[in-house]
Amino acid sequence: MLDYNGSGMSVMEMSHRSKVYEEIIHHTEELFRSTMGIPDNYHVLFLQGGATMQFGMVPANLLAKNGRADYVLTGNFSTKAYEEAQLFGKTINVAGTTKSEGFVRIPEQDELTLDPSADYVHICLNNTIYGSKWHYIPDTGSVPLVADMSSCILSEPVDVSKFALIYAGAQKNIGPAGVTIVIIRDDLLHDPLPGTPTMLNYATMASNESMYNTPPCYSIYIAMLVLEWISGLGGLDAMQQRNIDKAKVLYDYLDSQDFFKAVIVPKDRSLMNVTFRTGDDDLDAKFAKESSADGMSNLKGHRAVGGMRASIYNAMPKEGISHLVEFMDAFAKANG
Amino acid sequence: MLDYNGSGMSVMEMSHRSKVYEEIIHHTEELFRSTMGIPDNYHVLFLQGGATMQFGMVPANLLAKNGRADYVLTGNFSTKAYEEAQLFGKTINVAGTTKSEGFVRIPEQDELTLDPSADYVHICLNNTIYGSKWHYIPDTGSVPLVADMSSCILSEPVDVSKFALIYAGAQKNIGPAGVTIVIIRDDLLHDPLPGTPTMLNYATMASNESMYNTPPCYSIYIAMLVLEWISGLGGLDAMQQRNIDKAKVLYDYLDSQDFFKAVIVPKDRSLMNVTFRTGDDDLDAKFAKESSADGMSNLKGHRAVGGMRASIYNAMPKEGISHLVEFMDAFAKANG
Repeated sequence: MLDYNGSGMSVMEMSHRSKVYEEIIHHTEELFRSTMGIPDNYHVLFLQGGATMQFGMVPANLLAKNGRADYVLTGNFSTKAYEEAQLFGKTINVAGTTKSEGFVRIPEQDELTLDPSADYVHICLNNTIYGSKWHYIPDTGSVPLVADMSSCILSEPVDVSKFALIYAGAQKNIGPAGVTIVIIRDDLLHDPLPGTPTMLNYATMASNESMYNTPPCYSIYIAMLVLEWISGLGGLDAMQQRNIDKAKVLYDYLDSQDFFKAVIVPKDRSLMNVTFRTGDDDLDAKFAKESSADGMSNLKGHRAVGGMRASIYNAMPKEGISHLVEFMDAFAKANG
Repeated sequence: MLDYNGSGMSVMEMSHRSKVYEEIIHHTEELFRSTMGIPDNYHVLFLQGGATMQFGMVPANLLAKNGRADYVLTGNFSTKAYEEAQLFGKTINVAGTTKSEGFVRIPEQDELTLDPSADYVHICLNNTIYGSKWHYIPDTGSVPLVADMSSCILSEPVDVSKFALIYAGAQKNIGPAGVTIVIIRDDLLHDPLPGTPTMLNYATMASNESMYNTPPCYSIYIAMLVLEWISGLGGLDAMQQRNIDKAKVLYDYLDSQDFFKAVIVPKDRSLMNVTFRTGDDDLDAKFAKESSADGMSNLKGHRAVGGMRASIYNAMPKEGISHLVEFMDAFAKANG
């Protein structure tokens, strides 16, 4: 904390141009590459502004070719990304959506209407608020696939080569808010739309190795420690098994009784965000209140969905989920 | 560090929507307001991307009225801000510069050519690399004055009401890199240029109290602790006296001998960055090497200026400067 590796300085105070900090950012990149199996023809960037900044940065850069993009809407953040893309005066299409069904599932491949001249197809791999996850990677042919992985990155292995660009805010599975990871295939590093600020230019950030100006040094350092923790647990295969085991406890309980109903169809359920409801708004509110009093914070579902949501990111231990299931069972018996 | 005020959580892990975090960000804003004397008709924003992001965000927002702006060039970062403003296809004028003199002074009021129909005039109040500082606030009439204060904010009192917009990256005097402070007068909160991403829209960030998405929570928390430290020392009047006392030791020594020459004319010298040179590149290089071996890091001047630069921000104790002067005097005797 106060003296990094005998440098006499905390990572919070050292110059980002110092050798010791360059080692930290390079080592963090190497850990991302080895942990996720990122091919050599991709850059790993450490940016700022969260996924919301990427909602604008992706179109500002990638629409410079044909000015057309496809968005698949599967929940709150994919819809926000679609709305942001419309700011740039280009042609933005909805290639598929399950909005009319309340986003309870992900569209299948044969439900997607893909534009072969699109500059990219955008998906949100894990839908934080609705609790769904793509169970397959869509085939977009030669059109680059862009994925927001903010709420599932590092939770299980992913074949990076199937994507042209992956982005994720740090605050779910990577580290403290303040750094955004972008993994971008080199052929996407071209001039952005006119009027794009330099800080939002992927090519500039790549050629400057994320140090065009001072990066969020401390958040990157904590990301390095988190990646070392994942590596020590056995990497993403082990993390995936851990996450499957954790989510199974909760989904098995949900499927074993009738008081609570899981929101998402079984094949598209998220390992990170488990959504459920009683079907009665007053009971849902009572559950949120009593679970909070029991020491379990943030179980109230997002206002867009209602009901309850258990966010069980990498850092959540299995014991926390067992405790939640016991609490749910007692609540069901008392209120059923 | 691990348990903020009995919440059971580190600031690094708590939700930015939690009551306890909202208290932190609101208290940080209140401390900025009281410490700097910020009038009620200004918003205080906590953004990301550093001053470099502001180089783009200022024109993207403020050029939406008349499409004209004036820039005064006094060093490296003011020039970068000017170059960035040119990306937006509008009319960007140089209202004054001392480039031909090597930026060794700040232009006087009567040297500025100001456009009365400009949307704003941009200055950099303290020039980090050259070591100069505006010793007066230019009169821009009814045209909003915008100032980059990255390397001098919180170093002395400033009359905020003379400025329409003040911005500063955190990593000099505020806290760890990752948060950028913007102090903006309410009449500047209007629609930006078309194609401006939402995250770069001052009005959106103001109406969402800097929480349109997850802010850089931990950097803001550390800023709060730094503001409490400044308050405990006696506020900005006391900080100014402290900084004058510190810089005087170094400037008095520079003016008392002939071996080292101060770069900047006396009236425009910075309290934060003291630049000097021997006049001999080899001796300058030797000084940088030997001072580094003596434990004083980062005394080598920026490659744009050469020579030496002592950055003596708020956190630098007076003892560090006395040690530097002793080292300089011994170096001068050994090499003079």
